[in-house]
Amino acid sequence: MAIEPPPSEHLTRLSAVQSSEWIRSGQLKSEALVQACIERIQATEPDIGAWAWMEAEHALKQAREMDHRRWHGKPVGALHGVPVGIKDIIDTKGIPTEWGSPACANRIPRKDAFLIDRLRDAGAVIMGKTVTTELAFMHPSDTVNPHDLARSPGGSSSGAAASVAAFQVPLGIGSQTNGSVIRPASFCGIFGFKPSRGLISRTGVLRTSQSLDQLGVFARSLEDIAILADALTGRDSADSSTLSCPKPQMLDGVKSEPPIEPSLVWIDAPYHKELPDDVKQGLEDVRALLAPRVETIPAPSQFHQLLQTHKTIQDVEIGRNLKKLAETHAELLSETLLETINNGQKIDRKSYQNALQQKAAAETYFRRFFNDFDAIIAPASLGEAPPVDVGTGNPICSTVWTLCGLPCLTMPILNSERGLPIGVQLIGGPEEDDRLLRSANWILRALAP
Amino acid sequence: MAIEPPPSEHLTRLSAVQSSEWIRSGQLKSEALVQACIERIQATEPDIGAWAWMEAEHALKQAREMDHRRWHGKPVGALHGVPVGIKDIIDTKGIPTEWGSPACANRIPRKDAFLIDRLRDAGAVIMGKTVTTELAFMHPSDTVNPHDLARSPGGSSSGAAASVAAFQVPLGIGSQTNGSVIRPASFCGIFGFKPSRGLISRTGVLRTSQSLDQLGVFARSLEDIAILADALTGRDSADSSTLSCPKPQMLDGVKSEPPIEPSLVWIDAPYHKELPDDVKQGLEDVRALLAPRVETIPAPSQFHQLLQTHKTIQDVEIGRNLKKLAETHAELLSETLLETINNGQKIDRKSYQNALQQKAAAETYFRRFFNDFDAIIAPASLGEAPPVDVGTGNPICSTVWTLCGLPCLTMPILNSERGLPIGVQLIGGPEEDDRLLRSANWILRALAP
Repeated sequence: MAIEPPPSEHLTRLSAVQSSEWIRSGQLKSEALVQACIERIQATEPDIGAWAWMEAEHALKQAREMDHRRWHGKPVGALHGVPVGIKDIIDTKGIPTEWGSPACANRIPRKDAFLIDRLRDAGAVIMGKTVTTELAFMHPSDTVNPHDLARSPGGSSSGAAASVAAFQVPLGIGSQTNGSVIRPASFCGIFGFKPSRGLISRTGVLRTSQSLDQLGVFARSLEDIAILADALTGRDSADSSTLSCPKPQMLDGVKSEPPIEPSLVWIDAPYHKELPDDVKQGLEDVRALLAPRVETIPAPSQFHQLLQTHKTIQDVEIGRNLKKLAETHAELLSETLLETINNGQKIDRKSYQNALQQKAAAETYFRRFFNDFDAIIAPASLGEAPPVDVGTGNPICSTVWTLCGLPCLTMPILNSERGLPIGVQLIGGPEEDDRLLRSANWILRALAP
Repeated sequence: MAIEPPPSEHLTRLSAVQSSEWIRSGQLKSEALVQACIERIQATEPDIGAWAWMEAEHALKQAREMDHRRWHGKPVGALHGVPVGIKDIIDTKGIPTEWGSPACANRIPRKDAFLIDRLRDAGAVIMGKTVTTELAFMHPSDTVNPHDLARSPGGSSSGAAASVAAFQVPLGIGSQTNGSVIRPASFCGIFGFKPSRGLISRTGVLRTSQSLDQLGVFARSLEDIAILADALTGRDSADSSTLSCPKPQMLDGVKSEPPIEPSLVWIDAPYHKELPDDVKQGLEDVRALLAPRVETIPAPSQFHQLLQTHKTIQDVEIGRNLKKLAETHAELLSETLLETINNGQKIDRKSYQNALQQKAAAETYFRRFFNDFDAIIAPASLGEAPPVDVGTGNPICSTVWTLCGLPCLTMPILNSERGLPIGVQLIGGPEEDDRLLRSANWILRALAP
């Protein structure tokens, strides 16, 4: 069983770009939009379970405030009055932020995360907190996939993806340490984007792996992806990984014409042999349609090793960052997580240092790589969403790109034999997120029927 | 004796808006601009003494980086490659930030202030640290006025104002707890702007008075004031006074046409009787030129009291914030400051609470006030810059506006009998900084010969 989309004239169908334009010009009230989203949540949430915390009045109050400000000629932002769902590992002042774990029940932050401040600058309405898997790791939540309620929405940003796919909100914010944005977006049939590492500050976000944790966004159109990502970027001295220079302008990227047709590349990754036939065929069709622009190359020799490199770094850092929680609340954590925390602590310092060196070498490799190509085209997930009892799916299609901090985008282009959505992934050069989105838009037009 | 301005074709004459446009379009290199500024500093600094810390190579390295990024097609910011001087009470990572006091010698912050992060996002070059009076209070520094080396540049943002006036840098950042932006800008013949309280975060800035401390900017044109202020605004959860909503767009304000000619108001403030004749006459001339648009009203009854209100709050808060420093480093602090710190500690809790209530009432008054007027027109200082041995001048022309957190701008419009510059101040409604700058631009055009 799937959730029916709202009727085509319904406000919850609107894109964020369209909504904010109408709100700013006075054709639409934020309150009406937010009210429509609340009603949609009330109608569909019992089936989907995408929200960890949502109070209608809290959202409506912000919406009225944005309407009031606009009415009184006060400044309006790029996301003025548009509701956004926030993954529940991102701190929100005075609002429970429980990291998807009973071990963190009743955790109420005293400060907003840096990215929440950026959303306030843009005039967005914080709709509530979306469900995350336990501590943004593998143990699934109860959220299900709007396209098939017996299937997983993917993880760890399960609620973020499901809520946007179910038309509960137009925009969602998630995070990706391995494949936690791209995979759920692929399974849920929406756009998912993890910008280059260093564009969005992680201050006030649960830290599982300082080398790998990155933030990402969900939406139902490429323009919406871009306008949300633009709002979030910025240097933050408190997160030293953030870039100390001007940031790519993503919406400009989407709207700009490529000077020449983009050069795409397909890398024959070792894990592609695990792709089911329907995805293989779908990706071949896509490559055939884009044929003159797609080169195919074998995977670089170190490619397979990088999966282990990622695992070593993630395990060691999870081991360190969640050690205390495991000591004090072991009985409230899943076996999977406890095992990873324990294993991580057993990995020796040298293996960790080696892994960091391999990561640095891979980053150097990919920095040069995009001199020749605009984007890598690749699968976003190993097929359609798995049944809920199987887990949240395999993140392997994202591992290398996340490790190297490259910007990754998934676009809802394919369908499985069963009719479920599957994404096609594009990966771009570091800090060239605008160029990546420009290529993506070109591809969408090239593939349009 | 005064410092001669650079020849008219010299790069140090360029506005920030012009420079960044040329740098972004490739017509000018940031390195060339920064090098010109360095040479200007080397030539004029022995006379002026505006810099607490400046290393040529540090600035040039940033300039080359911005040129390099632009050359390689990376994103460019609104202030790409444009040098900015930073008042030495604003933290800069790894660079001495000594608060203008030997008591804080060798203080080197480990993090940049929030506003430095914003400058990095905009692509600005941090030129160095400009001299502040001792802990941004009244005890003067050694900086002198570029228009008359025997006179004060004003304070406490002495170096920021003097460096911009002397064409050492196009832009400077200062702060104002009473009159520390408007007064030095008036004395130095440049534009000075203190935006509404809550637009610019104070995280990483010396705290003297949490209720009154506000940041401000210096430049030689209205557009430059706006482009710099725009770059700095943003919500910051770590400074709870920052506004949690979209911010005024100042450059848009400057560039926009008023829908009708602005309504201005002159308030007969009690301290105007202290204005010297040349300023009185100058202001009368200005009002005469703008006559049909200027209404004159008596000062509201509580106006005079507000000077004391400000003093009570400032003294109490300085007393608290600098108590520890006074205890550990009394021998390195000035008499003036020690006295204020000691006096502040003697003020009883009730007087302080009363003062905060009076402040809140005045804010409410002025929130309504600007329903009827676009801006208050007023003196920026009690006349020209005083001789250096007299001090940094009287901040009284700013006290009430700073207390109420209103945006204030000074424009270099008048000259004293001696030929020294004197500013005309405009004060706008809270959070209506864009409207204030729009009115200011209209006035500048109306007064243009």
